[in-house]
Amino acid sequence: MSDAEYRLHYWPSIPGRGEYVRLVLEDAGAEYVDVVRLAADRGGALMAWMKGDRTGMLPYAPPILEHGELVLAQTAVICRYLASRHGLVPANEANRLLADQLQLTVADLVAEAHDTHHPISTGAYYEDQKPEARKRAEAFLTQRMPKYLGFFERVLERADGDGGVLGAAICYVDLSLFHSLEGLAYAFPKGFAARSGDFPRLMALRAKVAERPRLAAYLASERRLPFSEDGLFRRYPELDFV
Amino acid sequence: MSDAEYRLHYWPSIPGRGEYVRLVLEDAGAEYVDVVRLAADRGGALMAWMKGDRTGMLPYAPPILEHGELVLAQTAVICRYLASRHGLVPANEANRLLADQLQLTVADLVAEAHDTHHPISTGAYYEDQKPEARKRAEAFLTQRMPKYLGFFERVLERADGDGGVLGAAICYVDLSLFHSLEGLAYAFPKGFAARSGDFPRLMALRAKVAERPRLAAYLASERRLPFSEDGLFRRYPELDFV
Repeated sequence: MSDAEYRLHYWPSIPGRGEYVRLVLEDAGAEYVDVVRLAADRGGALMAWMKGDRTGMLPYAPPILEHGELVLAQTAVICRYLASRHGLVPANEANRLLADQLQLTVADLVAEAHDTHHPISTGAYYEDQKPEARKRAEAFLTQRMPKYLGFFERVLERADGDGGVLGAAICYVDLSLFHSLEGLAYAFPKGFAARSGDFPRLMALRAKVAERPRLAAYLASERRLPFSEDGLFRRYPELDFV
Repeated sequence: MSDAEYRLHYWPSIPGRGEYVRLVLEDAGAEYVDVVRLAADRGGALMAWMKGDRTGMLPYAPPILEHGELVLAQTAVICRYLASRHGLVPANEANRLLADQLQLTVADLVAEAHDTHHPISTGAYYEDQKPEARKRAEAFLTQRMPKYLGFFERVLERADGDGGVLGAAICYVDLSLFHSLEGLAYAFPKGFAARSGDFPRLMALRAKVAERPRLAAYLASERRLPFSEDGLFRRYPELDFV
């Protein structure tokens, strides 16, 4: 065991859903180890760890966070847990509940973005579901993405502060929104650019999050993995509808 | 405003995701009003309420729970909130976090079950995406559903109590698992029956939850809406792979 406070287990070569956790850890300045990236056989190490004998929680899928005896899975649960420990969500219950439900709506958006390249089966290659992917991507870019982003734009308008979705200060949901916008801009350069003008507050939030000192340092570091066509957000020109 | 403690806003003619909330309310013996089912124009009332001017939280989609000043969206957040108020989740943090992540894994399963009949677009009719639905349903029944149910079976084995996923007592996740199993059995009578023998602990949990006195009364009442081909779990024989 390392001496770092947190141990993150995630695929070693993609941002994926692990990135949502990394952003909270990095913004908090928390001490953590990205376990699998340090392992010799990397992906193999993750599967071996997942299947290994352990007491406590049985995790369904990565990302997984170990903190002392706790073994946490599900991105939204991990982010909320870290945020509550590191001041990235207000202490009062009403705001926490508001953040929780917004975070799950981000998760819904991300799951739909993923399914643009895997509309039929996560167990099959993209190349085996390309016609269906084109149909789903078109529906996503013309209907679903604008619906989600329009919702978050209205949330920001309503919050009416100089912070993020909760108004006064940046919270973990804002970090997740930032990464989701980065991912959408990567995956759909034309489709996203064609619509981003409709969401000025979201675009301002994206810029503001990237400027937070710890995050700016992280984003410029080698710790930040690039997007690719192995990840959650993939750039396939044939799926980029305007 | 009614005098009931809670006000649920959901589509009036399907169990849908609202049912996960109803089961917690019913099992808790909580006083609630299913607002839209009492309204004269029903579905219209839900949309009018969603779009109405209100202070506070902007909800993305139903189900929505009002409790005093709180306006909560996202099924998992609502269920967790109610469970914590009504003794349907243990008080210690580790068990709560465990329940939270399991509930989100139930939500993932449910989203994938939904997408069997809407693999391309939620904005289009099933009839306009039938070939893709057949492919997605086959992948769901042969790969994804067994993977999810196998996971929950192992969770129950590990919990090793006479309760549910957390061991000692039934918690809100068990209620959600119950309804999801009901839904899968409805939607895929052949495909589900062919595999349910692999998950004896889950099947025992399903029976145990249905026998809880308040739930048994609810399930036998007219308050429980039947499954149908307008809902989350739909029975289309052409999607029922063995």
